[in-house]
Amino acid sequence: METIATLLEHRSIRNYKSTPIPENVLNSILEAAIRGSNTGNMQVYSIIVTKNTEIKQKLLPAHFGQKMVLDAPVLLTFCADFNRFNRWCESRNATPGYDNIQSFSWAMVDAVIAAQNAAVAAESFGLGICYLGTTTYNADKIIEILNLPKGVVPITTLTVGYALDNPLLTDRLPLEAVIHADTYHDYSVDDINRLYSEKESMSSTVQLVEENKTENLAQIFTQKRYTKTDNIHFSKVWLDVLAKQGFMNND
Amino acid sequence: METIATLLEHRSIRNYKSTPIPENVLNSILEAAIRGSNTGNMQVYSIIVTKNTEIKQKLLPAHFGQKMVLDAPVLLTFCADFNRFNRWCESRNATPGYDNIQSFSWAMVDAVIAAQNAAVAAESFGLGICYLGTTTYNADKIIEILNLPKGVVPITTLTVGYALDNPLLTDRLPLEAVIHADTYHDYSVDDINRLYSEKESMSSTVQLVEENKTENLAQIFTQKRYTKTDNIHFSKVWLDVLAKQGFMNND
Repeated sequence: METIATLLEHRSIRNYKSTPIPENVLNSILEAAIRGSNTGNMQVYSIIVTKNTEIKQKLLPAHFGQKMVLDAPVLLTFCADFNRFNRWCESRNATPGYDNIQSFSWAMVDAVIAAQNAAVAAESFGLGICYLGTTTYNADKIIEILNLPKGVVPITTLTVGYALDNPLLTDRLPLEAVIHADTYHDYSVDDINRLYSEKESMSSTVQLVEENKTENLAQIFTQKRYTKTDNIHFSKVWLDVLAKQGFMNND
Repeated sequence: METIATLLEHRSIRNYKSTPIPENVLNSILEAAIRGSNTGNMQVYSIIVTKNTEIKQKLLPAHFGQKMVLDAPVLLTFCADFNRFNRWCESRNATPGYDNIQSFSWAMVDAVIAAQNAAVAAESFGLGICYLGTTTYNADKIIEILNLPKGVVPITTLTVGYALDNPLLTDRLPLEAVIHADTYHDYSVDDINRLYSEKESMSSTVQLVEENKTENLAQIFTQKRYTKTDNIHFSKVWLDVLAKQGFMNND
């Protein structure tokens, strides 16, 4: 039951010791990453392993200055990557037809499966991880810094290192909130009230709402953390990146 | 090291016993799924747990008739889901702005993290799994069968059950093929030849090429398995689905 315990005890680690990750441990994490399922065994992903402080410094603003980017000894940037596969095809008298959004979606799924295997492997070694969602926000900047060629799009980043603290488990909605038996059962207002009541009544939530001077937790999301204006801006960036990296030739 | 062993020993299981999955085991798998990282703790995913034979029969053609859809006792369809979150916002006087491709990308990442946690958890219980990539191909049909409302898009499906056989590990490219130190290092023709040589010289590959009457393995991908014509067709389906489910309002 070590595996289940590892999965159930996951918390995101945002403060790291400077202790480096032993090479054999990092290697096992990467080996575990590539054993995960992937589309048609094409392995259309790449993993950029960044330890160099200068490159981390360059990545810092792309990750909105989150200091764990510098503190964690290793950053793993998981990319959708058809560049390698296309080069293979082209050198084998085979014409690749993967410059479209369907192919991109396979590569995106592959990259995240590899990332989560790496995350679980790292945690099983007593390391801490945190996902950086900023990767899709500032994909354009990350492409430039990491020198990603056409066919390659960064999907997510893991910070990996030894935890400096041991944060509490984050709350989750009750299981019934996200599970549907056989087919989808839509939510009534009563369902929503019931499923969100524990989250909304937590003392940390009450405090957060007070600090943010909003009416409730939902408004913190819509007005502060994930605003429509930001989402639209970063959607344009994302669509531009998909086009520029060669995944929007859908006709 | 149970966890690393579980990850390294993964193989996709396509033949299943009819033995049902005990409820407490299935529950642990789902609990492990929702403990995974997710964007801003919004949990913008849903998991459809399908055991009903009639619904599996309906899903079968959407998964191109792969019989494991019927044979596996449980199908888990992981969906990007902003419907629940939007309903919560709307009932809290908060205006959601998540009908765009950036928000969709978070939900897609969340869904795959949950899926891979479920996969690892299932394997740690001695169960076998297989990902069905057909989910993004025929998302339109799956939406209809599983009754997915606006805001919900199926991303991937896991078949879960007890394995009827014990297939060999699938080959992978050498680790150096997918790993880049600090920044991306592009591939020369020599690199490609070296990195793909083991895969191309496997006796199973040689046999496959003979059966398919192609010049080489790459042509099996481009001419038989993942053709440009199919990819374009299923890209259009995917873009239509994203628009219809409300994720293409990017202006």
